[in-house]
Order: sequence, then structure tokens, then C-alpha cells
Amino acid sequence: MTDSAKPLGEFDLIERFFKNRANQQLKNHPEIHLGIGDDCALIGLEKSLNTSGLKDLAISTDMLVEGRHFLPNADPYLLGHKCLAVNLSDLAAMGARPLGFTLAIAMPEVKAAWLEAFSNGLFDLANQHQCPLIGGDTTAGPLTISITVFGRVSGSEALARHKAQVGDDIWVSHQIGDARLALGSLRLEWPLSTEEFNVVSARMHAPTPRVELSQKLLGIAHAAIDISDGLLGDLSHILLQSKVSAEVLIDQVPGSDVLNSKSLELQRLCKLSGGDDYELCFTASTEKSAAINNLSKELGLALTKIGKITSSSTQLITLIDGDGHPLPPNLSAQYLKSFDHFK
Amino acid sequence: MTDSAKPLGEFDLIERFFKNRANQQLKNHPEIHLGIGDDCALIGLEKSLNTSGLKDLAISTDMLVEGRHFLPNADPYLLGHKCLAVNLSDLAAMGARPLGFTLAIAMPEVKAAWLEAFSNGLFDLANQHQCPLIGGDTTAGPLTISITVFGRVSGSEALARHKAQVGDDIWVSHQIGDARLALGSLRLEWPLSTEEFNVVSARMHAPTPRVELSQKLLGIAHAAIDISDGLLGDLSHILLQSKVSAEVLIDQVPGSDVLNSKSLELQRLCKLSGGDDYELCFTASTEKSAAINNLSKELGLALTKIGKITSSSTQLITLIDGDGHPLPPNLSAQYLKSFDHFK
Repeated sequence: MTDSAKPLGEFDLIERFFKNRANQQLKNHPEIHLGIGDDCALIGLEKSLNTSGLKDLAISTDMLVEGRHFLPNADPYLLGHKCLAVNLSDLAAMGARPLGFTLAIAMPEVKAAWLEAFSNGLFDLANQHQCPLIGGDTTAGPLTISITVFGRVSGSEALARHKAQVGDDIWVSHQIGDARLALGSLRLEWPLSTEEFNVVSARMHAPTPRVELSQKLLGIAHAAIDISDGLLGDLSHILLQSKVSAEVLIDQVPGSDVLNSKSLELQRLCKLSGGDDYELCFTASTEKSAAINNLSKELGLALTKIGKITSSSTQLITLIDGDGHPLPPNLSAQYLKSFDHFK
Repeated sequence: MTDSAKPLGEFDLIERFFKNRANQQLKNHPEIHLGIGDDCALIGLEKSLNTSGLKDLAISTDMLVEGRHFLPNADPYLLGHKCLAVNLSDLAAMGARPLGFTLAIAMPEVKAAWLEAFSNGLFDLANQHQCPLIGGDTTAGPLTISITVFGRVSGSEALARHKAQVGDDIWVSHQIGDARLALGSLRLEWPLSTEEFNVVSARMHAPTPRVELSQKLLGIAHAAIDISDGLLGDLSHILLQSKVSAEVLIDQVPGSDVLNSKSLELQRLCKLSGGDDYELCFTASTEKSAAINNLSKELGLALTKIGKITSSSTQLITLIDGDGHPLPPNLSAQYLKSFDHFK
């Protein structure tokens, strides 16, 4: 047998596709004193404080399950990208700078080609954000991937959910709804041409965590969240924790050309209730509008005002249509249903 | 319907069984600036340095899968205990003091009674070690639990795997092999009386992470590991990383009364290759023997010398029997097979 045809054990594969590359990443991270290979990783707190000046460690964890968060036979490269992307997106929602991550993965069997592609997707994104893999666990089981990600931020500056203020504008980055549009096509809820599907499914499979944007929003924005479960559901977390309400101009929510070519009803469904876009929704006082528009130009990334934070009322979110009228209650209720993983 | 009979949604249940109790725990942890409920948890690095004097954050992650790490229909209280225990055991293997943990869990369905018992087992152990839940994710899927645990240690003192030195004694805590003895009975590899099974299965279901012992070993021991995959397999990680070899006096490895009543062959199998005991295996120079024996008395916990670290040789581990003779190569090889989750 040639070397590449030799069946490899779990440890060899982890060594080849994860450990060696992870340790390679650590060379530029003197604050990580110990990476993969011991019972624990070690991060030097003093060194981390000294090199970054940021006083808090931000931590987020996510679990992605085959058949629930991604399709069986999902492209392993894109899957590796997405698993880390959704976690980096949580850091972005806080304004935290990536520091490192751990990976726990259950797989039904060890396939070198799959692992190679998966780890390529993972490390390509990790390297792009200088975010090394510092620990992990591999086991047999239904394909399930859990990542815990670490970042640095100063707590007082962090874009926490409880910091929205009455009078703030509500903004979103880029475009909302493509991931839902792609999912609906896969579920046969509506048809898309192959060309349309290829465009919008890229947003579902390979979301871009808004890490750079979020760094620049520190000191500008108040509250932020990443849109993973749907714009209105995610916004409601900000509202509840900030004890405020909101008016959302639903037809101002930016969509892609493909989505904008669809019926108003489908656009609203995808933009308001669709998840998985991983764009940022954030609030900022109106006097920061010019700064935000400048930031948009600097980054080449659309940032769009979609509503206002209002004082707390019995109606958490009021949806306003393109003519400035509130949506009828029954239609409104349909979009406001919150997302529940077990429904 | 009475209140307790009302079906609860995911968010209500997480609120009731996790979030409220987690936030309760945080009251005694001023260095945790933000717990569950935002995109990320925030740990104040400066405050953590000031209150503990410990300069490194230790991080470990584990994933437990139904049917692999625990039986379908496992008692949810014990499962909650065990999931956290195996992670605290990783901190113990490093000498780190628990600081907090995140929990990601996939469940096929939401059952309040199950969640209540699971969270009770989890929080009872967490509270015992002042280790609050600081973040999490819940989703639908095959029952899979991933915990990432955080602790504090000073890196220079940490009981890292690469620190074993030639001439060190090898020690283990308490007794080894009961978890394997219980598992074998469940697998019908050998019979146990109900009474015997009840005694030894408690070790499998409710392991005790040696957190207190490990704190006290700082400055005394060199290298340490927790026995999760089997004594010889786990010891081999220390040996490989420290670039040394070892002699193990296999009949000195301490077992329980139940295990010691079995054949020598079964005793050796359970003690050398069995996993899941979560006792500590550590190395220390011979001059520390008196200090270790005193520590054993102080904690009321047996600590037993089971071998020696030797200079690196082609034979990583030499097994010595009760008469001081090396085991025949074929018998030795049988115990030295390393554990592989995919075999």
C-alpha cells in the first residue's frame, strides 16, 4: 500500500488534519501557552491583557447537528467554514476580537477525505481571522459539531443585548433573507432557477461573520446581535433585554436582487422570519448615522437603517409597511412567531 | 391545566432549569461580567488575575454521545453529574481551579422531567466546585452533550503531560478498574452479583473529579493525567510528551475489594486497559513521597506508587508482575493496545 492509501487510525488523522495545523497557528499567538495535546489548553491572561489591552474574555458555544443545521452529505469544506463562521458571528455580535476556539466533533466513521475537506474549510476561515484551534475532542456518533470560541473585548464597550436605548436607529448589515430563500427551495416551498439557487445558497452555506464591522462599531453602536434565527426573533432578544420596543420598516430591510425579484409576501417572509444569514443587527443613536454611513463606504459593506427603538409598550415590535402603515394584526402575528428549535 | 402540566417551550425550559440557576451561581463570581443570555459570556481578565493570582486560563472540551459514552435511558441525574465530572477531571489533570463552564446539548425531544433531573445532577456538582454555567446552546438532535470547562492555574506550576522526569515515581489516586468491571458486566463479558454491580457501577456512573487533590499536588507533582481511556493508554500520553519510558508494577495498581476478589487476569484487564475511572495518574520525584503520603492522610484518599519513569527506550512501557518479572511480550502487548474510539 502506498502511504496515502494506508488506513489511518483516529489519532493519526487528528494529528494530520488538526493538531499539526493548530500548532502551526499558535506561532503567532504568544498568549496561548499550551494548545492541543494536553488535558487543557492554557491562555496567559497577563500576556493577553498586555498585548491586546482588552480586559474581558468573550466566550460563545454552538452545536450543529446533521439533518437539523445542515443536510446529510453537506459539502465538508463548506461545513467546516460554517461551523466556525456561526461562532465567529457570535463574537462579532459582541464586538469581540477572535482569540481561539475549541472543537468537539462526533462522526459516524473516520473518512480521511471528508476530514481533510472539513479541516480545510475550518482552518481557511480560522486563519483569515487569526483564530487558532486550541483544544478539541473527537468521538464516534451521529455527525455533531460543537465549537466554543474565545475573543477579547472591553466589557464596557461590548455590544451587549441590553444596551439599546430609546430613540436608537436599528441597522442591519448587507442583505437579509437569502439563506431562507435557499432553504425554502430545498424544502420545495417555492421554486428557484438553478442560477438563482446557486447565488442565494452560497449565503446559506458560507456565511460571512461580520468580525471586521463589529470591531469598528465599538464606540458607535449600543446593542447588537447576529441574525441566526430570524431578524424579528433575534431583534426581540435585544428589545427584551433592553426593556424597550421597536418599530421596524419591513420593506426597508435590504434583500439581494434575487430576493427582491420575488413577491412582496415572500420577501417579507424571508427577511423577517428567515434565519441563517449571520448578518449583524445593531442599534445606534441617530447622531452616529454619518459615522455609520462612512463605515459602510470604508468597508464596502451596505449598512441600512430599518427602524427605531421606542419606549417599552405591550407590542414588542410594530411592523410598518412601505406606505408607513402598521401591518394588520393577523399578518403581523404571522411574522412575529418566535423561532423554537423544538417546534 | 395546572401550571406544572402545561407544555413548556424550549425557551421556558431553558429559563427554568438552566438560565435562572446559572445566574444564581454568578452572584459569587464577580469576575464573570456576563453569563448566559447574550451572544457571548464575558470573563473579566483583570479581576480574575487579581482575585486568584493565577495567570493562566485552562480550557478543556469534551463530547459525550448516547450509546457511546452512556447507555440509552441513562439516569439523567447521574448523566448530568458525569458530563461535568469528566470535564472537571481534565482541569484536575492540570491542577487548575474551576472557574465556569459552557454546555451545548442536542436532545431528540424536550422532556421537563428529564431536563430537571439532568440539570440537578449538573448543578449539584457545579455548585460543589463553585463552577457556574456561563453559556450554552440547546438544539434538537440525537442526545449529545458537549461541555467546555474553564479553570485557572499558573502555567509554570500546571501539571502538564510533558513534565515527567526520569526517576519520578508514578502514582495513582484511589482505586482503578471498577468502571471497566461494571461495563463488562453490562456487556455480559463476565457476571457480577447484584450487590457487586451496585458497588462498582457507582464508579462508572458518578466519577469523582479529583479537583481538591490536584490543587494540593501543585509544587509536588510534575506531570498528571486523568484516567479516562485506560491507565496504560493515558500514561503513554505522559511518556510520549515527556520523551521518557516507564516501568509499571501492574499488581501494585490498587483495586476495590470487589475487583480484588476476581481472578488476577480480570484484575489486570480492568486496571490496565479499563477507562472511565477518572482517577489521577501523576509523577513526582521520590523525595516527595513523604509529602504525598501526608496528603493522602489529609484528604482521606489513597495515593499509591505503581511504577517509575525511566529514560526513553524502544519499549514505552514495561509491565512488571508481582514477582518482579517483566510480563511475557504477548501478554504485555494485549494490555498495551491503545484505546481508539473508532476501533
